Amino acid sequence: MKYSIGIDFGTLSARALLVEIETGKEVAASVYEYSNAVIDEVLPSSGEKLPPDWALQDPNDYLIALQTVVPDVINTSGINPGDVIGLGVDFTACTMLPINASGDPLCFDPKWKNNPHAWVKLWKHHAAQPEANKINKTAEKLGYDFLKRYGGKSSSEWFFAKALQMLDEAPEVYAAADRLIEAADWINLKLTGVETRSACTAGYKAMWEKASGFPPNEFFKALDPRFEHIIDDKMCRNITSTGEKVGELTQNMADMMGLKPGVAVAAATIDAHVAVPAASVTKEGIMTAIMGTSACYMILGREPRIVEGMSGYVEDGILPGFFGFEAGQSCVGDHFAWFVENCVPALYTEEAGTRGISVHQLLTEKADQLKPGQSGLVALDWWNGNRSVLEDVDLTGMILGMTLNTKPEEIYRALIEATAFGANIIIDAFDSGGVPVNEIVACGGLAEKNAMLMQIYADVTNREWKIAASAQTCALGSAMWGAVAAGVEKGGYACIACAAAKMAGVKDKTYKPIPENHAIYSKLFFEYKKLHDYFGRGENDVMKRLKRIKEQQAKG
Amino acid sequence: MKYSIGIDFGTLSARALLVEIETGKEVAASVYEYSNAVIDEVLPSSGEKLPPDWALQDPNDYLIALQTVVPDVINTSGINPGDVIGLGVDFTACTMLPINASGDPLCFDPKWKNNPHAWVKLWKHHAAQPEANKINKTAEKLGYDFLKRYGGKSSSEWFFAKALQMLDEAPEVYAAADRLIEAADWINLKLTGVETRSACTAGYKAMWEKASGFPPNEFFKALDPRFEHIIDDKMCRNITSTGEKVGELTQNMADMMGLKPGVAVAAATIDAHVAVPAASVTKEGIMTAIMGTSACYMILGREPRIVEGMSGYVEDGILPGFFGFEAGQSCVGDHFAWFVENCVPALYTEEAGTRGISVHQLLTEKADQLKPGQSGLVALDWWNGNRSVLEDVDLTGMILGMTLNTKPEEIYRALIEATAFGANIIIDAFDSGGVPVNEIVACGGLAEKNAMLMQIYADVTNREWKIAASAQTCALGSAMWGAVAAGVEKGGYACIACAAAKMAGVKDKTYKPIPENHAIYSKLFFEYKKLHDYFGRGENDVMKRLKRIKEQQAKG
Repeated sequence: MKYSIGIDFGTLSARALLVEIETGKEVAASVYEYSNAVIDEVLPSSGEKLPPDWALQDPNDYLIALQTVVPDVINTSGINPGDVIGLGVDFTACTMLPINASGDPLCFDPKWKNNPHAWVKLWKHHAAQPEANKINKTAEKLGYDFLKRYGGKSSSEWFFAKALQMLDEAPEVYAAADRLIEAADWINLKLTGVETRSACTAGYKAMWEKASGFPPNEFFKALDPRFEHIIDDKMCRNITSTGEKVGELTQNMADMMGLKPGVAVAAATIDAHVAVPAASVTKEGIMTAIMGTSACYMILGREPRIVEGMSGYVEDGILPGFFGFEAGQSCVGDHFAWFVENCVPALYTEEAGTRGISVHQLLTEKADQLKPGQSGLVALDWWNGNRSVLEDVDLTGMILGMTLNTKPEEIYRALIEATAFGANIIIDAFDSGGVPVNEIVACGGLAEKNAMLMQIYADVTNREWKIAASAQTCALGSAMWGAVAAGVEKGGYACIACAAAKMAGVKDKTYKPIPENHAIYSKLFFEYKKLHDYFGRGENDVMKRLKRIKEQQAKG
Repeated sequence: MKYSIGIDFGTLSARALLVEIETGKEVAASVYEYSNAVIDEVLPSSGEKLPPDWALQDPNDYLIALQTVVPDVINTSGINPGDVIGLGVDFTACTMLPINASGDPLCFDPKWKNNPHAWVKLWKHHAAQPEANKINKTAEKLGYDFLKRYGGKSSSEWFFAKALQMLDEAPEVYAAADRLIEAADWINLKLTGVETRSACTAGYKAMWEKASGFPPNEFFKALDPRFEHIIDDKMCRNITSTGEKVGELTQNMADMMGLKPGVAVAAATIDAHVAVPAASVTKEGIMTAIMGTSACYMILGREPRIVEGMSGYVEDGILPGFFGFEAGQSCVGDHFAWFVENCVPALYTEEAGTRGISVHQLLTEKADQLKPGQSGLVALDWWNGNRSVLEDVDLTGMILGMTLNTKPEEIYRALIEATAFGANIIIDAFDSGGVPVNEIVACGGLAEKNAMLMQIYADVTNREWKIAASAQTCALGSAMWGAVAAGVEKGGYACIACAAAKMAGVKDKTYKPIPENHAIYSKLFFEYKKLHDYFGRGENDVMKRLKRIKEQQAKG
């Protein structure tokens, strides 16, 4: 029996999953919580206070994770380490760091360790907004059209905004960096000694496209003359498509991780995107929905398409041979968590405590008694802005229809319905934008655990929602890519579709729309859409005006 | 020293206040909680279940109250009962009942006691909506314009709707009733043996006006031929203006109440309206605001005026010689109570418990730390519909601007601000409608107790808010009318302005607008007004559509 290991680097922890290649059976898993977690208050090396919106990580956490979780799954399973033939890594992105010529992070160097710019900038580091604005303005001014693949706007979370912030604020760190690299690609460099950039990270986060490569040097020069040669000086034009083998595990790393050298290592991927094949999706027309604190919707197509609200499409970015389209909602599980933390009365908390269930469970039970429309409420799910068709971080939440009889579970359900309406807007946008959605497979915590929510999504969208069989789709997806990188001769697979046929699947239980519920929800969606357009498309910019007053009052 | 007693009949209890006439000093007070309270589930006599929207009372509770609270204030104070020279009664309205020729309620009669229509219909009995609709349609069809004095619409709470419901559903009770009478006027009938209708109850609740009297018989005939002579058969055209003496206390009642016969009894008033002179307001241009679970705004004028959203104006209805204008907000304290009951997390409840303060106090403390506009929130205060300029019970609440960082105290403050914006709409409507508002005096629980709320009202409206000196304005007002009914010769006053000069006043502490707060609130009020008109004036009737869906789903 041969095995592959998927390693999923999340925001707070890394997880290894050991998978039987022939069957997809998940044999052992192990999780390591990063000791420095998210560094957003003080720099661990110096105690220096970080400015607002900063979010760093310690790359040492990643290396310790490799040396912890991989030996752990080998030990737990009792398998022969020689039977591990493939390894795949997925990572949050854009999570990037400066390294020296030996591949070591600059923050390991005593000379640089007290400079925050020498550390890893985590995906949710939001302090590079001025640089993102500059990138957007410069591209527009000079007539570059590469941003149209990303819904027209570059984000402060992306690679060049973060790199440009480093150049702006710490040119000495920028100069000292031999390379600027996504953590995903850096892990692969450590594992194999081979430097590449994956099509997935480069495509979704660094504006690379298969046909034309990275933006031209002239563009970077226009941002800053010192930035002109960033690609050739600090990055790498060696792009590996998803599913390609980057290299093989070195002796040194094999020793550290309790494996044998020579294990095939697959091109690294972004954590969301790797879930697609693990949800058994390997062709166009099927949307993969990852539903957790936020939601990510991915779908494959054969042609490039500009779809409203899409956060990006990348050729070969999710699966080779396809354009991988992506859209998202910035506030799903977070929304319900906010409600539970801030709006649930003591009586409910006590009832949940007495019955030994969570407040979420109690609210779900109560909300599940309600029929669609029975609360008279409708909400806009913009507590964290709108990251889909309106692409506007300054939008805020709204709820309407309250009376003196309105109950907490009614509001809770209305918030869930609002996120379902938001999902429906995205599906409609893809469907009417030339990227047809014929099927949906969901994964992630909410899809796994919240049957009421899934039924609401089915009823609102009038579509069947299937659920991925695995509860660990990210790590499973990475293991699948590891099996593909190993190839048939070593006991792996020739392609991801072959791997998915054996290793991935969906659960028997699916969520089918109930016609009478959909009939009501189509009326409520009409109301949602009308309010969505009124508040979101400029007819009444009250949310932005309130936000400006709020900012002004917070300062004053 | 001479004394007057004011008796305030509220929804759940009656209160007597013994007042020193020369100084207004409140010497003793006593409260009686009605044993049958609000009868809205089963009829006490038979256990019969009442239909939805019914709300009855037991007139025996009122009589027991008289025999309890009046002796109690005499005993507590130790005064000589012979020094009580005046008595005034105020009551909720329209709270009406059928009585026989001896003045006894039909529900005291074993023949009728099991018929719910024989009992008192309380002001918040809402089951006569079909009859109110019929009254409105008939008046419009036949071209009668008396409803224009009441904002164009008659309410299901008013006298003729309730009487017509009795005729529709229990014609035998209607036939058996010698009189249909407001509880306020019935108490005066019991006290004095004299039957009158007060200008206040008849004007605000039975469409009487000084110039033309009640609507003509033809109108009542058009509603139902059996209803044609309701005024002459079941009511009374003997109207007493506020401040007039109705009669004197009978021997029998004096004995029951521990007083001497001959005490002057003043024309009865509605509980809200009697607060005006008790708040020291006896001339035009000063608005009296009663701020409790709901809010009532009253102002005097010299001329009739049609003001948008006004719930009514009545000549001599509040003070003789003036047109008394009235408007209201249906959800003020109720709004905050809803929030505290449904939306405050356990952590807050615990903190309040530990510190030995109420959750309201804790929220107020936290909300008081916030600057105007700092929360980024704006709400529409329509949790109980809109009873002012939009006159629409089908409107519902809305709140906007939430983020994942929004805290309970921010929402709490936004709800308070919303009611202040609602008050500002009413003040603007009067001011621009020819009934100038030059000063404001507030009374009621919120005005007494919530300094933060009062400061917000001052800042939003950019006006100084004074607070009535007495915490019991209704009972004090009734005592003042009692002193006027007694007249100068007996040791009372010649007019209510004379009485107010000695017996009423405002506190030293007033709430003055803070210019920088008003500057922000004028921006927020702009947003409130825009949303108010968008949702309230037909541009987007989403609230009504949701309410229809809700009703349909509740049924199905």
